[in-house]
Order: sequence, then structure tokens, then C-alpha cells
Amino acid sequence: MADIKKIVECVVNYSEGRDLNKIEKIIEPYRAKEGVKLLNYEADKDYNRVVVTVMGEPEAVKNAVVQSVGIAAELIDMTTHEGQHSRMGATDVVPFIPIKNMSMTEAVELAKETAKAINEAHDIPVFLYEKAASKPERENLATVRKGQFEGMPEKLKDPEWKPDFGKCEIHPTAGVTAVGARMPLVAYNIDLDTPNVEIANKIAKVIRHSSGGFRYIKAGGVEIKERGITQVTMNITDYTKTSVYRVFETVKMEAKRYGVNVLGSEVVGLVPMEALIDSAQYYLGLYGFSMDKVIETSLME
Amino acid sequence: MADIKKIVECVVNYSEGRDLNKIEKIIEPYRAKEGVKLLNYEADKDYNRVVVTVMGEPEAVKNAVVQSVGIAAELIDMTTHEGQHSRMGATDVVPFIPIKNMSMTEAVELAKETAKAINEAHDIPVFLYEKAASKPERENLATVRKGQFEGMPEKLKDPEWKPDFGKCEIHPTAGVTAVGARMPLVAYNIDLDTPNVEIANKIAKVIRHSSGGFRYIKAGGVEIKERGITQVTMNITDYTKTSVYRVFETVKMEAKRYGVNVLGSEVVGLVPMEALIDSAQYYLGLYGFSMDKVIETSLME
Repeated sequence: MADIKKIVECVVNYSEGRDLNKIEKIIEPYRAKEGVKLLNYEADKDYNRVVVTVMGEPEAVKNAVVQSVGIAAELIDMTTHEGQHSRMGATDVVPFIPIKNMSMTEAVELAKETAKAINEAHDIPVFLYEKAASKPERENLATVRKGQFEGMPEKLKDPEWKPDFGKCEIHPTAGVTAVGARMPLVAYNIDLDTPNVEIANKIAKVIRHSSGGFRYIKAGGVEIKERGITQVTMNITDYTKTSVYRVFETVKMEAKRYGVNVLGSEVVGLVPMEALIDSAQYYLGLYGFSMDKVIETSLME
Repeated sequence: MADIKKIVECVVNYSEGRDLNKIEKIIEPYRAKEGVKLLNYEADKDYNRVVVTVMGEPEAVKNAVVQSVGIAAELIDMTTHEGQHSRMGATDVVPFIPIKNMSMTEAVELAKETAKAINEAHDIPVFLYEKAASKPERENLATVRKGQFEGMPEKLKDPEWKPDFGKCEIHPTAGVTAVGARMPLVAYNIDLDTPNVEIANKIAKVIRHSSGGFRYIKAGGVEIKERGITQVTMNITDYTKTSVYRVFETVKMEAKRYGVNVLGSEVVGLVPMEALIDSAQYYLGLYGFSMDKVIETSLME
């Protein structure tokens, strides 16, 4: 029973991970506001960065983000900022993720509106990235952010790197912000019954896009010392195109080459309902099925 | 991302399946009302009965039901009613089904409140049934309804069958109503690659509760002539206790005795999200998983 209300998620990254007082002020616009829900925020001291996850109605989320970006611009001075994570602005990146009753096109539109509003309200230049990118070279965030805060004044003078909104000059203390749109990620790990990380690496190589695997898989091998096993750890960047079960079964198939068993798997953080239901559909051989048939129950304990 | 709002489903059965004018008036209280959504209604002429499915916030659904039961009492005269389906009242049965952020205990409580309000507002005697039943003999609706409208005046005189609300006398034209609570059903069919319905019947017998199978399965065999196959057709009456995958795998296992393949399966009507995610969890060997991790996306086409 799909509700008709559109729901978007937004994962805003700010360059402040140490001063809890400032962080509280920055996230204030996401609290107790009609149509916006603050789901989670995680500050990292070494990164000197906080990642804030909010969900809600597109217009309400946009307005809260614009307001919060203004507070971050007042409280964070990038000229003295240090931390281990790449960054180019007080509000560094703002990805929008369509969750319910929204297409990617609508999420891209929302990203553009938000980018425009941020620039108009706070005079911060904004790049659009990922699905909202205005050209292919701007899709990858790492490319956009290359040079970081310190390199941005120079980078913005290059006509290739004219911001999508705003002038070719950084905000003196808040730098530059990237606003984008992407699919919900599935962070997914598959456990292998071997302590040999070489095998996990080889399987990761087979399934990931960059070395010939599935289009929407980024993967690597990792050792889980305390359990004496290894994992193929991955991000599924579009579960509607590369299914969870398909990756799981492929890893099982490849593991056989090494006489290794697959023990199970785990999702890290949140997982889209459809990514799991799609797998149930495969394993149960469900025909004549569509997501319209699903009632969003929460009864199991 | 569970919303905290409680959501209940209610499937109200009225003894009018022919006069669309009357049906429109009866379902009017479910339309355009804050907190109530009319999902579906299906009138059957032979049964002379309409099944109305609504969903929403408990209090709002209760009030709409009470109002609608009053309209049905005015428009339907059971003394002249005829139809092929068993019935005992103008509003025949009112089951409440917990959907979100509600326990069965709360659904039972809602059923009792609704039953009381129906009796007080319209002077219709009410039986509680299924999970709301006041004694074991009243759990089964068929037992409660035995004797039907015509037999009720006599039945109500039996102290064993004193109504849970109201006096021991039927409403002269609206009869008696049953209000209950139950889990969401999963109507589920598994396809067998054989035209021999005997095999489907034998497998149905193995899995159903009544003949030694799973506690929450009611099943039978059926021939699908146009496809040259048979099905094990079933209701899973509590998917939190008897899982979809467990029944599917058991049917596969039993089908092997007859050298028959399982072709696939289908859910009929709506299916609770958790019933499918539970199966995904099994097949993917997901550990460390809980329903809190699920974001209720709707992006797939």
C-alpha cells in the first residue's frame, strides 16, 4: 500500500567533527520540523567531519538543508580546518536519495533547486555531482573535490571548473559545496569460510565493475581476524540493476573454485526494502508479483 | 525507518452485493476522511455481499466502521436477504489486522472498543471472534455464525451464546455482527509441474495444520486446467510463526517423492513486507539483521 507522499533521504556531510556545540547548532534545522526527520548523525574526530542523515518530504528537506548550510557557513572556518578526510567546504557534500514515490529525475531536480537556493542564500559556489552532474567529468565526487579547500580558488578559475551555481570564487570561509543525487546504497558483506584474504580479494575482483564484474558493484576483500574468516565487502550502488541475490549466488559460485564455503552475509546500516524483496522473489520463484502487492508491515520482533 | 504512527487494517463484510447505490452509501464513511484510507471493495452478486478493505489510524478506522455499520443497518434488511454466503448480520464480520507499530494485543483492544461502540450506537448484539474471542468456542467464525441470521434469535437465548456486547436479542433487521482481530494472511500458491491433482492434495495434506503439518497453514490441492499444472493453494495465517520459505522448501522436498518439480509460486492479493524479507533473510544467510534496518523504498518498476 504505497502512500502517495514523496520521501527523499539526504546525507549531509559537514566539516566539523569535534565541537559538539557547533554540531548541535548545525543540525538544529532538522529537529522538530514538520515533514523532516533527523535519522542519525555521526561525528568523527579524526576526519573532523559529521555525517547527518535526514529523511522527509522533498520541499521540507530542501528548506532545512539550505538553513543548516547557512549555520555551518557561520560556524565553520575552512581556512583553519584540518582533518583526515578530503573536503572542500564547511558543508562538503549534499547527496539526495529518492526513497518513496520519487524518480531519480525528481531527485536530480531537487538537488538542482537546493544547489541554487544554497548559492542564493549564502553566496557559496555549488557543483552538481553524480546523477545531478552537468557533465560526465563532474559525476565522480573525488574528481570534483580534487585540490580540496586549499586548491579551490585556483581550480575555480579554470573555465572547465566553473561552478554550476555561483561565481568562480570560493566563499572565503565556507569554501565550495557539492550537491548531488544518487540511488540508495546497499552496503553488503559476504562471509567466506577461509582466513586467506587473497581468496576474498580474487572473488571481489570478479564481481566488481572496475575489473569486469557487475555494473553497480564496488568490492574488496577484507580479513575478519577475530572470527578467523574473510569477507567480500561491497557497495551495491544501484540495487534495481544489480540484485543482491545475483551477487550472493555469484560469490558462492566463485568460492567453489577455491573449495571455500560461503557462511552467510550481512547488510551494514540501512537496506532498501525492495533490495531484499527482490531476492525473496528470486528464491521463491514468485511470478505475477509487483511491489504494489506489498503491505509495509512491522510486526516481527 | 519505522514511523511511529500505528496502522491497522480492517476488512468489513456487509450483506449487500447487488445494489451499488446502497454500497456507495455504506462505504461513504471510509472516503475522504483524515486517517482512513479505503483500499478496495469487492461486491459479489451471488454471495450478495461486499468486502471492504480499509487501512489507517486505529481511532479513525474505529469511528468510520461504527458509522458505516449504522448506515448498513438502515439500508440492509436481513429478513429478506438471500445469498450463497453464510451471514448473520447486515454488517456480518469486522476483523482488525495490525499492520504497523501495533501488537496483536492492541488490535484485540481495538476490536473490543469497536464492538462496544457498535452495540451502543446501533443496538446490534456483537460477538468477539478469533484473537479477540472471549472463550475458545468463539474463536472460529464458522462456529459463531452457525445457524445464520435465521437461526440467531434462538441461538442467542442459549446462555452459551450470550453476545459479548448487547442483549440476547437480534437487531430486528440488522441481525448480529462479529468483530475480531487476526494476523495479516498470506494467500500463497505453489505450482507443481504435474496435471495430477492427487499429488497436489497429498502435499497439501502434509503441510497443513489440520492433518499434522505446520501450525499456521490451511492448504488444499487444485488443478489449473488451462496451464496443465496443479497447485498447492494455502493461507498462511501467521507468517511470523510459519515462514513462507519454510513452506516453499517443504513442498519442494515432498514433491521429490513423486518426481515432480516445483515451478514457482505466487502471492494472491496483498502480502506483508516482512513475510518476504524473512525469506530473503533465510536464503541470503543474513545475520545481525533486524527489521529496523529496512527503509521502505518504492523505486522499482
